[in-house]
Amino acid sequence: MPFDIVAFDADDTLWHSEDGFERVCQRFVEAVAPYAPEGADCFRHLMSVERRNFPVYGYGAKAFSLSMVEAAIELTGGSIPTTVLQGLMDEGRSLITRPVELLDGVVETLERLARAFRLVVITKGDLLHQHQKVATSGIDHLFEHVEVVNEKDPGTYRTILRRLDATTERFAMVGNSVKSDVIPVLNIGGSAAHVPYHLLWEGEHVDDDHGHEFETLDSIGEVPDWIDRQRRRRRTESTR
Amino acid sequence: MPFDIVAFDADDTLWHSEDGFERVCQRFVEAVAPYAPEGADCFRHLMSVERRNFPVYGYGAKAFSLSMVEAAIELTGGSIPTTVLQGLMDEGRSLITRPVELLDGVVETLERLARAFRLVVITKGDLLHQHQKVATSGIDHLFEHVEVVNEKDPGTYRTILRRLDATTERFAMVGNSVKSDVIPVLNIGGSAAHVPYHLLWEGEHVDDDHGHEFETLDSIGEVPDWIDRQRRRRRTESTR
Repeated sequence: MPFDIVAFDADDTLWHSEDGFERVCQRFVEAVAPYAPEGADCFRHLMSVERRNFPVYGYGAKAFSLSMVEAAIELTGGSIPTTVLQGLMDEGRSLITRPVELLDGVVETLERLARAFRLVVITKGDLLHQHQKVATSGIDHLFEHVEVVNEKDPGTYRTILRRLDATTERFAMVGNSVKSDVIPVLNIGGSAAHVPYHLLWEGEHVDDDHGHEFETLDSIGEVPDWIDRQRRRRRTESTR
Repeated sequence: MPFDIVAFDADDTLWHSEDGFERVCQRFVEAVAPYAPEGADCFRHLMSVERRNFPVYGYGAKAFSLSMVEAAIELTGGSIPTTVLQGLMDEGRSLITRPVELLDGVVETLERLARAFRLVVITKGDLLHQHQKVATSGIDHLFEHVEVVNEKDPGTYRTILRRLDATTERFAMVGNSVKSDVIPVLNIGGSAAHVPYHLLWEGEHVDDDHGHEFETLDSIGEVPDWIDRQRRRRRTESTR
């Protein structure tokens, strides 16, 4: 086998997440627009408040809830009823309490991979919420370890590998974000497969893949074949 | 030396934290009381909302900010001005952006201990905020590792020790919470010293120390002597 550890991103790789944020964004616009000046772009403003707050609040639904309340007050010059604000906080809260909904093919694929590899979750986000999601996912027993991090940069991946007693050459990462799950892993000499979700949070957009070559798979079900291809590729390389 | 690893709690053990929450609680009461019914106990209500939200929001200033907004709306039947709500969120935010203020004796004590032990931080709270505090503390270079956890129970400590390749017998924990820093460590066979802060968040109150014997120190500066006492005690025990 070409790898010891196969690691997975969580949100939008193992289970749905961004669809919930998108739905709450729509509710935000519907709830706030009636109190905002004619023509105000409520969605854009929410995104800009989220971006502005990011260095202080970081990722996750609590950060998003606070940004919604702040954006709603700003957009309406404070005229938004407090009942609407409470409704926005309830929407944000629903992102935390929503049951985990696994993506198609996750259970079968991970059960199969768990027989051959150490499986790990490496995810950004809120510590409590991410652990709660893993714990209630029904597939938590397949993971040797769950790591919640602030940023997925090369240094983060190196630290995790050191603590897992693993080498970059025998490490593979699978995730929906080229920026967080693919490029930093390739940068440290690991392997990575990109499995896009139909939505991508704007914070994960990447303009440039920095010349890296990597495979984009249609679904997580293609990961075992991708791993096989890595093995064959290495054999070919080593017999040249 | 009796230990390999000496671990420290962070908030109210290495730096001030609860004093900030207490100050913001007072501001909450001052800001909300004028809009609440005569005789309402604003502080008690905030505490009850915080407790109610805890399973969903967990620890930290973002959770506290959301609970303040929710409690203010409830206490005033929604009549609280949105400018006051924004002010409460700003107060909550100030808990995140306040500069780290180390407790007396921390620098000298940790610099001394770092020459003989692997030093580690084990703290509850918000992942981003806790790492930011360590990073800006001026003493981050003294720590081999920083672990942010949801709960400090025996299982959590066992997992951390396994990952640090350490044994419970050679592990010491220092912290201000008997409930989180002392009892679970003694329960797994480690050593722990209690260094109280002058304030204790009600979530950390413990009614019963379960018959455990442990030392309560006046300040972190007494930790090196406490470690010496552990060594002498062990020698005495081993020569009996």
